[in-house]
Amino acid sequence: MPEQPAPTPAEPAAREQTLPKAARKHLTRELGWTPRATPPVPAADLEPRATRLPAEVRAELVALLGEDQVADDRETRLRHTGGTSYLDRLRRRQGDASDAPDAVLTPADTGQTAAVLALCSARGVVVVPWGGGTSPVGGLPGTDADDRPVVVLDLARMASVRALDVPSSLVTVGPGMRAPALAEALQADGLALDRLPQDLAEGTLGGHAATGTSGFDRLVAGLTLATPTGVLELGRPPAPAAGPDLLALALGSEGTLGVVTELRLQVRPEPRARHHEGWSLRSWAAGLAALQRLARHDLLPDVVALGDPAHTRTGSLLAGGSGARALRGLLRSRRHGGDCLLVLGWEGLPTVVRARRAAASSLLRESGAMRLGTRAGAPRAAVPQLRDQLLDQGLLVETLETAATWSALPTVYDAVRRALRESLSRPGHRPLVLTHVAHGYATGASLVVTVLADRDDDLPLQQWLTAKRAATDALLGAGGTLTHQHGVGADHRPWLEEEVGTLGVDVLRAVKARLDPQGVCNPGVLLPG
Amino acid sequence: MPEQPAPTPAEPAAREQTLPKAARKHLTRELGWTPRATPPVPAADLEPRATRLPAEVRAELVALLGEDQVADDRETRLRHTGGTSYLDRLRRRQGDASDAPDAVLTPADTGQTAAVLALCSARGVVVVPWGGGTSPVGGLPGTDADDRPVVVLDLARMASVRALDVPSSLVTVGPGMRAPALAEALQADGLALDRLPQDLAEGTLGGHAATGTSGFDRLVAGLTLATPTGVLELGRPPAPAAGPDLLALALGSEGTLGVVTELRLQVRPEPRARHHEGWSLRSWAAGLAALQRLARHDLLPDVVALGDPAHTRTGSLLAGGSGARALRGLLRSRRHGGDCLLVLGWEGLPTVVRARRAAASSLLRESGAMRLGTRAGAPRAAVPQLRDQLLDQGLLVETLETAATWSALPTVYDAVRRALRESLSRPGHRPLVLTHVAHGYATGASLVVTVLADRDDDLPLQQWLTAKRAATDALLGAGGTLTHQHGVGADHRPWLEEEVGTLGVDVLRAVKARLDPQGVCNPGVLLPG
Repeated sequence: MPEQPAPTPAEPAAREQTLPKAARKHLTRELGWTPRATPPVPAADLEPRATRLPAEVRAELVALLGEDQVADDRETRLRHTGGTSYLDRLRRRQGDASDAPDAVLTPADTGQTAAVLALCSARGVVVVPWGGGTSPVGGLPGTDADDRPVVVLDLARMASVRALDVPSSLVTVGPGMRAPALAEALQADGLALDRLPQDLAEGTLGGHAATGTSGFDRLVAGLTLATPTGVLELGRPPAPAAGPDLLALALGSEGTLGVVTELRLQVRPEPRARHHEGWSLRSWAAGLAALQRLARHDLLPDVVALGDPAHTRTGSLLAGGSGARALRGLLRSRRHGGDCLLVLGWEGLPTVVRARRAAASSLLRESGAMRLGTRAGAPRAAVPQLRDQLLDQGLLVETLETAATWSALPTVYDAVRRALRESLSRPGHRPLVLTHVAHGYATGASLVVTVLADRDDDLPLQQWLTAKRAATDALLGAGGTLTHQHGVGADHRPWLEEEVGTLGVDVLRAVKARLDPQGVCNPGVLLPG
Repeated sequence: MPEQPAPTPAEPAAREQTLPKAARKHLTRELGWTPRATPPVPAADLEPRATRLPAEVRAELVALLGEDQVADDRETRLRHTGGTSYLDRLRRRQGDASDAPDAVLTPADTGQTAAVLALCSARGVVVVPWGGGTSPVGGLPGTDADDRPVVVLDLARMASVRALDVPSSLVTVGPGMRAPALAEALQADGLALDRLPQDLAEGTLGGHAATGTSGFDRLVAGLTLATPTGVLELGRPPAPAAGPDLLALALGSEGTLGVVTELRLQVRPEPRARHHEGWSLRSWAAGLAALQRLARHDLLPDVVALGDPAHTRTGSLLAGGSGARALRGLLRSRRHGGDCLLVLGWEGLPTVVRARRAAASSLLRESGAMRLGTRAGAPRAAVPQLRDQLLDQGLLVETLETAATWSALPTVYDAVRRALRESLSRPGHRPLVLTHVAHGYATGASLVVTVLADRDDDLPLQQWLTAKRAATDALLGAGGTLTHQHGVGADHRPWLEEEVGTLGVDVLRAVKARLDPQGVCNPGVLLPG
């Protein structure tokens, strides 16, 4: 089951996509990889350990929520085990389901959630909030250092639009809702959710708020946080004002302070114009410089994605299909064959889009960029969608990400690539490191780094842990941030102190001690043990 | 001295401006006011009480900072007494300087500030950070419930540009710097600070960060906070990412957690086009509706100021001069005499400004607005600049402000005006309540309310405290926030719990207990006693 989570409306049928032949050839050559069948342990063979939830606590939970909302059957527990990180996938592929929760609860509202948290705090039961189950950084560890029972709190029943204030551009939603469903609900009123990075479609809105996903956080005008010691109503649109903004403590708290049970989001008018197009740049350095100039002049488009040469080339091979072939032809015909693809998108009022696009285009031409047209701006399939298929054939595939100021970005890029190459190279084998800028700001940008390598069949976990440690040390040392979009989770937890300082960690601990004195809220993530 | 603070480059010579005759006539009629001389107690007669700072603590401070940086002479202490609120001014006018600090310290850097805080924590000495001394809400109370000695920490020596990262649009400055000085320093590199509300010119940048001034807060990419238990480096441009953003705890902490000793601010290119113009609207409701439509369609200009009929009429009378006469003539000629003036400003690239302005203009015309031209968009003198003169002649003059969503704004407006009118009316006397929208957001706007009334010469403090309580209860009840730009301070402290909840206050207390365990950091503001 964990290998094939129940499909959701937002989740494309990823396994059906196949690796194009040209891509397989390219990867074989680049990686020193011999494609081989390395199938996972069948889902039917996975077995969680016996539930540790005491019968009397189970009875109390049933009294609170009803029998139907307290599940401890094998299927439900397995379906709520771990996230989507490479480590989580490896564990499941190896047949390890020891991190399955002891029960899965589905509360209906804030009141029930607060009551469950108070009960679990009193009974010493760990609570892991569950949205889309997509954490790529071990945000859903399901294990506890003190070996207490663990329940997952699935927010699927709290997934509807609860209020819409059209004049104020504010919508109130349940945390279990996903962005595509909200977009559909808003359409009737001519409203839309601000553009989100593409891979946010699968997670839930509550999950994005809890992980503090950059880009999404600024749309959160308020939220309700149920904690073991009470309910916090945070955020006061239009602007935080009286005292420190406590909303910021909830964003990025990753379930360690409580559970997000309601969100107030800022929406915008449905854009009347959308224009996406591709540009080509002769080098990564030229691409970064061009983006930085756009940012400096307040001309960054709404969508910005710049691939490095490896990302541009491998991405077009992996995508397959006529679109990708046309793009490769286009790049060749412009003699920009080995270079960097920049995808830009503008959205909004037609006249404003036109003015911004014209100003940006002349700046780009001054920077040596060459326009490829709208066809090259079409969204392309990314490595993550082929991930399970690549894992089945003996590859290591993982993504990490960071952000840095424009000044620090080139150094961070070099440092991460070097660390990954050094760590993952063996005689006859070397990794492929594909990097792209996924989001731009006035002061800097995010970098998303996808790594492909021939898997070490004997010590696959060790292989990646070593590489991840090297890459993280390198990016922090060069001035990057620990994470931009994925969150801290169990995977980044050892570095939080380096990121925010000992005193910063202590401040977070003081807040947690007040809201979650027994430490039952998702204790395996964020705060160092 | 407190009546006439040392003039700074940013501070216009306010006392030289005189009240135009037409304005005096208007106010006399509206308020039932008889102009009369009510001069303040002369500055020379003010006497602070004997300093309570123990000689051995003074010696330790001198050892840390040097003799020149520990002042306890009468003039320096009086110059660092209280802020600019009506209550602070009244106290000083009555000859009360009992809230003067016992000494004024001027540290040179983060290290000295942290050392002073640690020493004061150990010795039980209260520390009040001091920027521009402009707090309009009792943010610099200088008194302590436990009657401990109080020192003011003046940041004037930390007022320079420390680093400039042009590619990343980031500047690092000392907290004592003011916006106009920074603007001048940035000009050489073609950079500018984002537009700030006009009255932010007099405060310091560190002060704006500490009070969490809305509009300014989003420019703060990072800051250094010295606390009694250590130094926090907060904020990680381009985006907060790993865990809760602790920077948000410092913004709006008002000196209760420590002292801001360095700021990293996001800057922008010097706008190549600036266009300011006035529009007239037939009613306040029509004005709000027009702004709300602009906001809904993502067309809010960079500057937005909408006066209600009272603000528009009284403002033009108070301003005096040919500009104001021309504006009144313009309003009359368009038969929009009694109505609302809307000032809008666009800044940025010429083509983008043109496109945004054209789109906004057609929306405004659809909303029944009439364009008055660029002359009506010139900045005008505001009531605050005449304040001391009005106080000298027997008036009560104070400003309060709030913010609310577009949906709640009309109700908040009505509720505040009603509360102030009911509280400040006596037989033959009624207040004049001038309201304007000073800042717009997608989800709502801020309201600034200036009150003028005939002063109760017997119980002037009581008169205002009663009115302020009524207005604050009313605006919170109607859905407004406690403050948008001024901060909480001693004046709003009784309402913080209503704004953020009991649990919210407890979270803030937990943070304070970790960073300032002895409670020496500006204890008279923000957190309820």
